[in-house]
Order: sequence, then structure tokens, then C-alpha cells
Amino acid sequence: MAKSKKTALQETDGVSISEITGFNSIENLKNKRSKTLKTDALISGILNQDITALSRAITLVESKNHKHLEKANTIIKACLPHANKSFRIGITGVPGVGKSTFIETFGKHLTNLGKRVAVLAIDPSSTITGGSILGDKTRMEALVKDKNAYIRPSASGDSLGGVARKTRETITLCEAAGFDVIIIETVGVGQSETTVHSMVDFFLLLKLARAGDELQGIKRGIIEMADTIAINKADGDNLKAAKLAKTEFTRALHLYPKKTSNWLPKVTLCSAIENKGINSIWDIISDYFEITTSNNYFNTKRNEQNKFWLIQTIEEHLKSEFFNEPKIQTELKKQLKLIETNKTTPFTAADYLLNLKR
Amino acid sequence: MAKSKKTALQETDGVSISEITGFNSIENLKNKRSKTLKTDALISGILNQDITALSRAITLVESKNHKHLEKANTIIKACLPHANKSFRIGITGVPGVGKSTFIETFGKHLTNLGKRVAVLAIDPSSTITGGSILGDKTRMEALVKDKNAYIRPSASGDSLGGVARKTRETITLCEAAGFDVIIIETVGVGQSETTVHSMVDFFLLLKLARAGDELQGIKRGIIEMADTIAINKADGDNLKAAKLAKTEFTRALHLYPKKTSNWLPKVTLCSAIENKGINSIWDIISDYFEITTSNNYFNTKRNEQNKFWLIQTIEEHLKSEFFNEPKIQTELKKQLKLIETNKTTPFTAADYLLNLKR
Repeated sequence: MAKSKKTALQETDGVSISEITGFNSIENLKNKRSKTLKTDALISGILNQDITALSRAITLVESKNHKHLEKANTIIKACLPHANKSFRIGITGVPGVGKSTFIETFGKHLTNLGKRVAVLAIDPSSTITGGSILGDKTRMEALVKDKNAYIRPSASGDSLGGVARKTRETITLCEAAGFDVIIIETVGVGQSETTVHSMVDFFLLLKLARAGDELQGIKRGIIEMADTIAINKADGDNLKAAKLAKTEFTRALHLYPKKTSNWLPKVTLCSAIENKGINSIWDIISDYFEITTSNNYFNTKRNEQNKFWLIQTIEEHLKSEFFNEPKIQTELKKQLKLIETNKTTPFTAADYLLNLKR
Repeated sequence: MAKSKKTALQETDGVSISEITGFNSIENLKNKRSKTLKTDALISGILNQDITALSRAITLVESKNHKHLEKANTIIKACLPHANKSFRIGITGVPGVGKSTFIETFGKHLTNLGKRVAVLAIDPSSTITGGSILGDKTRMEALVKDKNAYIRPSASGDSLGGVARKTRETITLCEAAGFDVIIIETVGVGQSETTVHSMVDFFLLLKLARAGDELQGIKRGIIEMADTIAINKADGDNLKAAKLAKTEFTRALHLYPKKTSNWLPKVTLCSAIENKGINSIWDIISDYFEITTSNNYFNTKRNEQNKFWLIQTIEEHLKSEFFNEPKIQTELKKQLKLIETNKTTPFTAADYLLNLKR
């Protein structure tokens, strides 16, 4: 379009000059300024521990809108120098183990000690249903009302990687907002534990002592990730079984090699509902932080986690770019069929598919 | 070059016509025919259980020469319809556990039962030193001399992925050569167990019962992969400790969830040097094959392994292509530094690096 260029000072009625000329109008500049102001306000809000500002910023992080994400990135960048100062605790256990009650009791214990506690969740099911294990906040009534606690239902996303990214960025915002302890909850049934494990400093596994507990469906490998196993509902008639389970788990943990952290995983009993054993779990966690910060494992681990997330994000992108190509998808199916009928090897098939993209 | 074209029948002194004209000369056709004949001879040799032909074909598979690899692919393709009929058994355990003696005794037990046994190895250290745990064949004297046994030192390669590919292709050749049982040995200290686990039907972990055995340095997760744990050197003064260890491991294995194969991992005692308990290990393995073939887990697992290797090969290629780019390597270092000093997040850094390639 050959239109006469208007100066940035000229204005037309109702229509932004930039829409006509492509140049910035005063109005546009004003908009930009107000957007910057809004972002600045959110940043200073977060740094002043304003929960409303924090919540709004997290909503930006979770948005799918490109402009929101740009804002989110600005906010995160500004928050980064103020982040990284909390203890990040992962808590997992199958449904029925009493996670909500545990987090409520544990969270209250921490706020009573003067800590500020944020509770986030990674819920793989929420990537499909949009739901969240923390959605049912009625289970954490006391914690919800506590002004030193902040509970945020899990981010939803198209992939666990996407959810993980949002949760990691939310951790940064919560830390900048001065939370001392970040609890990240997940259900002990899927891939999400590994994801959570790679973003926390300490990993707590909740177990039950009832018969057949070993076969509760905890994913293989989760026991190995645990820094402590807490046998919950160790009360009333359960107490004897819980004590037995403690012995069993202690024995089992001894079969594993020493962790690089020099930390020997503990097994402990608790009853969240009766508020028993909660303080000693916090003592264990405090010990852990003391040991791992003094031997520098704490920082080493965080650095490794950062590297992991960098490499992981790149790799996931490279894979999805390749495998989401329609041509590759069609040919992949054909090659899999050929492999199944012993007409080709996985390696020859891989070479063939890679050559299609060259 | 404007040269008069010579017919395929013409020949020049000492120089192949094809070198002058780019056309095939008789000599060249002869060469081609003899190459085809050679490949054909190797194929029929393998199918006729000729060990020399098998060894030569494996050497082609392991070669870095492009022409050799082309031949290897032709041979593998021809062997594929005759492969897939063996039991593939992975055996691991830390150095000192008595793997060589075990494989010798176990192998002899199988050949005595009329089986033909091939022993391969995946040795991560061999990728660096070119050495092999099977290099010291003196430890398996009886098996080396057995005409129904074939021992092949591990392939070397630039990466575990490369070694794995060569081993997988070697399995195909051994199967086409009529071996009933393929044993793949590895040292229980690294990534190679996962690699071996993904190419065998049955995974046997050798352990010792001596004090501190739990901390022998077996990699985390290997116990979970084991279909059976055999406590070796259960003889003489060791017997009591071995029995105790058996109880411990049985207990520990019960803490894991049931495997999808419906197979409950077993713990058993053996003394390879005294040839005790070897037969019951083969009984366990036979039971395993019976159970898993009747519930179709056997085939399902092999199909999944094939898919795994296809996807794995593609992913490894995509990653190495990206990360081996000099520009990416330089910028990656810079971004890692920025992450360490909290100036960027892993995700922003990943986006930045991915954009460099677009």
C-alpha cells in the first residue's frame, strides 16, 4: 500500500496511526509504556511478597498466548537474581496414602516455625483433563487460610515437558516472592516423579504399611530416588504394621549403593492426621540440607539440574520436530511393520527415515 | 573429459577402463561378481553354521569401512528371516563376581544339553581402550574349545550406541548361524546394563554374598532389571553368608511391583567353580521362557525392543547432529555460564540455542 507516511505526532480518529503506517503512534507508545508498567508492577509486587501479583505472573507463565509468555519471560528474568534461595521438596505417594493431609500438617508445622511455604503440583492427569490433585483445596483448609502459605494447583500443558517448564518457572517466581520452602506434589504412578526429582533438592516418598503395600503400584525406581521414606498413617491399629514396614524398608534401602550426596536415605513413621512424626521429618530434611550444603552437593545438584533441563528441552524439541512431520509419521509406520515381519532391522529403518529429512 | 567411449569388452594395460571412461569394464564386472559371490558365500556359510564365515561377517559388521558396511547390510538382510529364534540372555555383575567362570560352566552345561551357545560382550571400556573383558579367553578354555560354542570379544566403537548396534547385528548373524542361546556379558558398573537389558529376553545378575556386598557398586536400577539374581561363590565358608544374602535379596525384590511379564524375579545360589546350582539356573530360565512365550510377553518384548532401537537410533543421531555443531558447542558453553550465574533460565537458553539452527 502506497500511503503517505504520517509523523508519530499525528493521530487519526479512533484508529491507531501505527495500524495505517506501521509506525509507532503516541497511543502505541502509551500502550507499550503501560504494558511495561504493568510488568514492572508485577515484578515489584512479587519482590514485595504480594500474592496477587505472584498469582497473576504465574497465570502469564501458564498462558498459551505469545504476548503473555513474552511478559512472563521479562518477569522471570527480573526475578532470577532473587530466586534460588528456597528449599525445594518433592513429595510423592500413590492416591490414598494421605498426601493432602500430610502436606497440610507438614505445611502448618513449617509456617508455625515462621517459614513461608508454597505448594505446587505436577499432575500428569491434568495434562489431559485440566484437573489437578490440588483442585480439591477443601482438603487443605487450614493451609489455604494461612497467610504464610501459598497453594497453586498444577499447571496444565500439552506435555509433561511443558508442564515441567511452567512449574520450574513458577518455582523461580515463588522464590523471588520470598517463599522459604517450595513443596512440589506429584502422584507416585508415572513419569512425573522423575520430572519432579530433577527439580527438587529433597525427595520424600510417602508409603502405607498395610499388607501388600510393596505392590501398591509405586513406579519402579521411585524408591531409589527417595531421600526419605515416611510411612504415613502410623497410628492406632496400623502402628505395629508400620513399625514392621519401617524395618523392611530400612533393610531394602541398605541394598542400594550410597548416594553421591553422601546421604543415607532414612525411613520414618508419621501420622499426618494425628500430627505425629511430622517434626522429625522436618528435622531429617534440615539435617539433609545442612549436610549437602556443607559438602557442596546442594549447589552441584542444582547446577546439574539446570544443565539437565537445558539439554532436555533441546532434545525434546529436536525429537518432536522430527517425529511430528507427517511424512515421517507415515513412513515410520511402514518401517515398523517391516521390522515386525523381520524384513529390516531397526538400524536400517532408522537410516532410511533420517535420510528422508536430509 | 571428452574421451571416446570404449566398449565394455576393451581393456587397457594395467588400468581399469572404468577408471578412464567411468563405464564398467569386464574386470570391474568380474570384481563385482566376485564381491557378490563372496557375500553370497558368507551368507550360505552362516546358514550352514560355518564359524569362519560367521566370524568374517561379524568383522564386516564391526568395520568402519563404508564398503564393508554395505556388504554387512546385505548379509544381515539375508540372515534376518533365519534369525530371532534364540534365547538371548544378558549376564552382568561387577568385576570379581566370577562372570567368566560362570559363563564357562553355564555354557558347558548348555552345550552338554545339546545347545549351541554364542557368547558376546558389551564392554563400555572397550570403546576407549579397544580391549575386552572376553579378551582373556584363557579363562574360558573349555568353552573356547567346544565346537558348539562361539565366543566373540566385544565390538569396539565410538559410542555405546555404536557398540550396541554392532552387537545387535551380531546377534542376528549368530542366530542365523543356528545358535540356540546367545549370552551377552557386561560389567555391572555403567550404562551398558540398560543397553544389554534392551536387547535380551532374560537378565541375570550375578552377586556375591560377602559383607558389604550391597555396596559393591552395582549401578542403581540394575537390581530392578534382574529377572534372576544368582549369588555366586556360594561354596565352602561362603555358603552361610550366601544363604543369608538370598533371604535379604528375596525380601528386597518383594518390595518391587510385579513385572509386566508376570514373572516374579528369583534369587538363587550357585558356585560356578564347583558347578553347583548351574542346572537350576537353567531351569529357572527355561521356566521363564515357557511362561513368557505362553502369555506372549516374549514376542511383545522383542517388538518393543525393536521399536526402542529404531527410535533410539534416530534420537541419538538427531542429538549428535545438533550438539556436535561447533557453533552450538561454543554458544552452549556461554549459555551454561549464564545459567550458573542466574542470568538466564535453562528454557530461555534452550530457545536461544535452537534458534541458532533455524
